[in-house]
Parts: sequence; structure tokens; C-alpha cells
Amino acid sequence: MPSHDSTHMSARTGPGSEAPDVLVPWPDLDRAHGSWPDGVRVHVWDGVEPVGLDAEQLARIGYWAMPYATPGAEKLLPQLPGLRAVQSLSAGVEKLRPLLPEGVALHNGRGLHDASAAEHALALTLAAQRDLPRWVRDQDGGRWDPHFTRSLADSRVAIVGYGSIGAALEQRLLACEADVVRVARRARPDSDVHAVSDLPELLPHVDIAVLVLPENPSTVGLFGAAELAALPDDALVVNIGRGRTLDPDALLAETRTGRLRAALDVTSPEPLPADHPLRALPGVLITPHVGGGSATFRPRAERLIVEQVRRWAGGDPLVNAVE
Amino acid sequence: MPSHDSTHMSARTGPGSEAPDVLVPWPDLDRAHGSWPDGVRVHVWDGVEPVGLDAEQLARIGYWAMPYATPGAEKLLPQLPGLRAVQSLSAGVEKLRPLLPEGVALHNGRGLHDASAAEHALALTLAAQRDLPRWVRDQDGGRWDPHFTRSLADSRVAIVGYGSIGAALEQRLLACEADVVRVARRARPDSDVHAVSDLPELLPHVDIAVLVLPENPSTVGLFGAAELAALPDDALVVNIGRGRTLDPDALLAETRTGRLRAALDVTSPEPLPADHPLRALPGVLITPHVGGGSATFRPRAERLIVEQVRRWAGGDPLVNAVE
Ligand SMILES: NC(=O)c1ccc[n+]([C@@H]2O[C@H](COP(=O)([O-])OP(=O)(O)OC[C@H]3O[C@@H](n4cnc5c(N)ncnc54)[C@H](OP(=O)(O)O)[C@@H]3O)[C@@H](O)[C@H]2O)c1
Ligand SMILES: NC(=O)c1ccc[n+]([C@@H]2O[C@H](COP(=O)([O-])OP(=O)(O)OC[C@H]3O[C@@H](n4cnc5c(N)ncnc54)[C@H](OP(=O)(O)O)[C@@H]3O)[C@@H](O)[C@H]2O)c1
Repeated sequence: MPSHDSTHMSARTGPGSEAPDVLVPWPDLDRAHGSWPDGVRVHVWDGVEPVGLDAEQLARIGYWAMPYATPGAEKLLPQLPGLRAVQSLSAGVEKLRPLLPEGVALHNGRGLHDASAAEHALALTLAAQRDLPRWVRDQDGGRWDPHFTRSLADSRVAIVGYGSIGAALEQRLLACEADVVRVARRARPDSDVHAVSDLPELLPHVDIAVLVLPENPSTVGLFGAAELAALPDDALVVNIGRGRTLDPDALLAETRTGRLRAALDVTSPEPLPADHPLRALPGVLITPHVGGGSATFRPRAERLIVEQVRRWAGGDPLVNAVE
Repeated sequence: MPSHDSTHMSARTGPGSEAPDVLVPWPDLDRAHGSWPDGVRVHVWDGVEPVGLDAEQLARIGYWAMPYATPGAEKLLPQLPGLRAVQSLSAGVEKLRPLLPEGVALHNGRGLHDASAAEHALALTLAAQRDLPRWVRDQDGGRWDPHFTRSLADSRVAIVGYGSIGAALEQRLLACEADVVRVARRARPDSDVHAVSDLPELLPHVDIAVLVLPENPSTVGLFGAAELAALPDDALVVNIGRGRTLDPDALLAETRTGRLRAALDVTSPEPLPADHPLRALPGVLITPHVGGGSATFRPRAERLIVEQVRRWAGGDPLVNAVE
């Protein structure tokens, strides 16, 4: 898709005369969500096709909403000397942050993925409890061989990383007649949130642990051999946050014996190699980091970008700033 | 497991002197849920091992709680001349009813399966929307090939057969940010229930139709070519009720072209033959009638049986009578 202009110039320019223009990943956002504000020139780049802008046009871009889940798009950064604010549509921006020049503000997609990621975490949890991978393989293999399964109802589920996605997941789990144990960095006794340091006492009493942790120095390997060992036999570990927060060797050891089960949307390494031993374990279900990537995302992402461009044009502070 | 006795005889016998005894599918129900009432002799038969009772003992059985999902158990019926009440642990009893002699009351498992069947319907719906069958096959095939999927959130779901299970499903769907359209035999405008005769107007506006219909003469083939044709392209049909309520030829025709998708816990015929063409369609997910068969069922079924035996012993009317 070549870049094309939606120009709505007026006497008033964008905030700062050097680089008032914006670059967004989808065309026609104005038509779907009202019109672009006056004074802002909007270019479109999908992150896949060549950028249809010359150096002068690129130099005038001050706000860039990057295409979602399009590896390599960040290679455009050095060509944007006027850049002042970058919009990621991801909740986790740990890979992008070090690539940004000094002075460029980073904004993330916090909230955009809540419904989608919580829904995928629920789908993984239900699939694992109700043996859906087995039924898919039986469908393919011509078998009809029912057995009783586990359930989500009546289970106790720890949400490790009770933030934006965690709260959306909790609402779904409660409707499924599960009990929820909330865990975050620090205890918030008034809202029933436990501290991560309480995990050793909490984990022996849960049937399912869902990790919804961001990746940062405090979370890499946070859920390791000790946490896994604290879980009861046959417990399920779900990871919807970041692969490196769950120790891969400890996970493999506990799932290989069949003592624990796992349902993983994020892995370490990621992508998971074709011959990785986790793939062959009957108690392990793997999806290729698709938690955020569903139909709920696009309209929410579009609305965020339109709102940010409105703020940009008006000189108002953008939302979802990353410290 | 051979039959064994839990005898709690007292001066008082069960209701009716000819056949006061009861036969239940699991041992030790009294220990798990209080004690058996006085005056009732309780035998146990799991439906698989030979019945460890002689003709005289069998003749004294008046209430039989049949083993769940154990084909062939009904062959015991002719050996129970004193039978007055049969307890099925299924919600659907259409196959059992014609086998019962005149004068034997039938009681079903209404309510026992709500959490389990609603949860399985949700699992099927989420799996279909989020492409879990594809990810399972990719896991096995060594692939890591993400794509955007549909979602349940923001979808409109018709529950066709808005009864006991339907209400339990609705609570789960609403928590997943879906809209629900309720459909039953007759409209109940005060509680937003539409009549089944409104389906032609309703179906063009839904993304997902979940069938939760019992099998009876009015429901066989109820969802046929016309109903399927009324659904928009790419809609999902979920069947958690009974296979024969969904016309099999029309379903095959619409899923073969890929115009509609399906997720089926019940099929027609059932079991689905090994070489049935539905099995090979990428838009079709099949599970072998396991909606009711999960961990939530057993404790609820045990409590029902203990309650019925208490009523039996006390001469009180049993619950869950089938008209
Ligand atoms: N699978 C996918 O496709 C997908 C999609 C979207 C997002 N994600 C991942 O999910 C992560 C969470 O997203 P979110 O929107 O829910 O973020 P969020 O609202 O910031 O919540 C993160 C939670 O993690 C907790 N946390 C952070 N560091 C911790 C530590 N060291 N120990 C214990 N808890 C810690 C936070 O605790 P406090 O509340 O105490 O700060 C907070 O509760 C994202 O960072 C992203 O990496 C994955
Ligand atoms: N897959 C499994 O493992 C599994 C497990 C449990 C149950 N089931 C099946 O699920 C069925 C439903 O169970 P339930 O407990 O929810 O039963 P329920 O409470 O009796 O509800 C049945 C619903 O179907 C509606 N209905 C009946 N005949 C109809 C017709 N001709 N047209 C339109 N709607 C009709 C009823 O409408 P009204 O409200 O207007 O009467 C009612 O809303 C059971 O009969 C059983 O066959 C399957």
C-alpha cells in the first residue's frame, strides 16, 4: 500500500513548526472515526510496502503510530530526524525503547489488548482444562473416544501480574465460576491484591496460574523452579505476558514428567523452534503470540490513534506515555 | 467394582414394602455427603462390572440412579421388577424414556450439567474464534506462523434453546463482552426472549449461533438449510445440545464451501464415523459429546442422588421429574 496524503492544512500548523506531520499505519482513519483535525498532514505507511515519502516529507513527521506486529518497521526510525513521539500499538515495548533516540517520547498500546489478550488467556485455559488439543487430534485421527475432563468451574486461578489485562481476565474467570487470587508487585490489601513475595504460600492452593507479566529486569525468570515446584500436581501454568518471565528449563523439566501442564502464547525462545521438545508434550498447548492479535484490536487501536492525532494537533499531552 | 451393601436398616422400611432398596452408581456417597437415611438399603453398581446382586436383591430395588454415560447399563431394566423410579444423570433422556416399563417414573439430571456444558460451549466458541485447532496443528507440525483471528468480544451470539444451560452460557458470554440474543419456544418479551419463529429475522444479524436444544419431535432438524442460509458469511454454528437438531446435510453443504464454520460437541450420526467428511474441514471443530462430562459434574450428581435417596426414604416426591 503506497503512502497517500490526507491533507487538511489550515493557517494553524501542528505543534512545532519543524515536524508537524504524522504517520499512521492505516488509511481512512478519519472517515471511520470523524475527520482529521485542521493543521495536520497525515501520511499512511503499513510497514510492509516501501514508504512512499521523500526525505523532506519524512523529516516533517513528528508523531509516528507504528504498524502493529510488523517486524522491521523500526528500521524507518533513522530516517525520521524530526520525530518527537512514537506510538506503539503493543502493551510491551521493551524491545522498541532502546531503539529510540534521546528526546523521543514513547507511547504504548495499554488497554488496546485487554479484551483480546484476556480472551485468549481464557481460551487457552479452557482448552487445556477441557482437553481440546486431544479432541482436535482425535478429529484428525478418525477417533471418537470421550473421557471425563477437568473443568475451569470450581478451580482456583492465580493471576500473576494483576494489571490491565489481568482485571479483564478476572471478570471472565468469575463468570466461569472459578475463584481468583490476585498477585502484583506489592500487596494492596484494600483490593485483595497479594504481593509477588507471597507466591510460595499462595501457589500450593491454586489449580491454575496465569502469568500476565511485562518483561523487565524484575520479571525475567520471575516464575522459576521454586514457583513451579510450589504448584500442586497436575496444575496448569498459562503464560500470556512475556515468554522470558517463565523459566524455560524449569518449565520443560516439570512438563516433561507430566507433573504440570502448560498453555503458552509466549515462549522462550520465541519463535519456538520447530524441533523444540515442548511441542511434543501432550500436556502442553502452544499458540504463536496471538493473544493481542484479534478482531477486537483494530477498532480500539484506530480510535487511540485518532485521539492521539487530535491531541497532537491541539498541542495537548498524548495519552499512554511510557515512563 | 462389585456391588457392596451399605445397610442402615431400622424398623422403618422404605416407601412401599415390595421394593424399598436403592441402587446407585458410586460407593461411599453417604460418607461424602452425610449418612444414608435409616430404612434404606443402598447397593452400588458402576454399570461396567457384573452386578453383584441376586434376583431377590434386584427385585427389592425401587429407585435406581443409573451410571452416567455408560452405554448398556439400561440392559439391567428387565431384571428390576420392583422398579418405581429411575434417575438419569443426563439432561437429555429421549433414548431412555421408551425403554422404561409403564408406571416407572423418570427423573433427569437437569441442572447438573449447566456449569460443565456451558463451559464447554464457551470453550468451543473461543477455540473456533481464536483458531486454536490451527495452532494445535501448527504446534505438531513445527510451525510458528501467527495471524490475526476473529474474537468473541464484540460478537453477537444467539442462544437457540435459552434454558438452564443457556442461561449459564449467557453469563459467560456477557463477561466476554459479547452480545446475547435469547431464543426459546415462545417469546417472553418481559425477559427479552425471542420465539424460535423469529429466527429468520434474527439470524442475519448474529455472528454466532449456539444450539442448546433438547431432542424431541419439535426440535429434530429444527436448525436446517433455511436457518443456516439466513446466517451471514463466516458465521459460526455451535451445537452443544443434541446432534439431530441441526440438519446434517445442510450443515455439511454450508461448511464444505467454507461459507459457515461449526464447532460441534454433538453430531448426527453420533459417534461421527472415522471417515466422515466433516472431520477434514478446516472450519469445523468436533469434540466427542463431552460437554457434560467434566470435573464439575460428579460432586453435583452425588449431591442430587443423596437428596433423592433422602426423599425416597422419607416418602417425599423426588425432584427433577420428567413429564
Ligand atoms: N500475548 C500477547 O499477545 C500480549 C498482548 C498484550 C500484552 N502482553 C503482555 O502482557 C503484559 C501485561 O500487560 P498489561 O496491559 O496487563 O500491563 P499492566 O496493566 O502494566 O499490568 C502489569 C502487571 O504486572 C505486574 N508486575 C510488573 N512487574 C512485576 C514484578 N516484578 N512482580 C510482580 N508483578 C509485577 C504489575 O504489578 P503492579 O500493579 O504492582 O505494578 C501489574 O499488575 C504486557 O507488558 C505485555 O508484555 C502480551
Ligand atoms: N453436550 C452435552 O454433553 C450435553 C450436556 C447436557 C445437556 N445437553 C443437552 O442440552 C439440552 C438442553 O439442556 P437444558 O438443561 O438447558 O434444558 P432446558 O433447561 O430444558 O432448556 C431447553 C431449552 O430449549 C428450548 N426448546 C425446547 N424445544 C424447543 C423448540 N421446539 N424450539 C425452540 N426452543 C425449544 C426450551 O424452550 P422453552 O424455554 O420455551 O421451553 C428451553 O429454552 C438437553 O436436553 C440435552 O439434550 C447436552
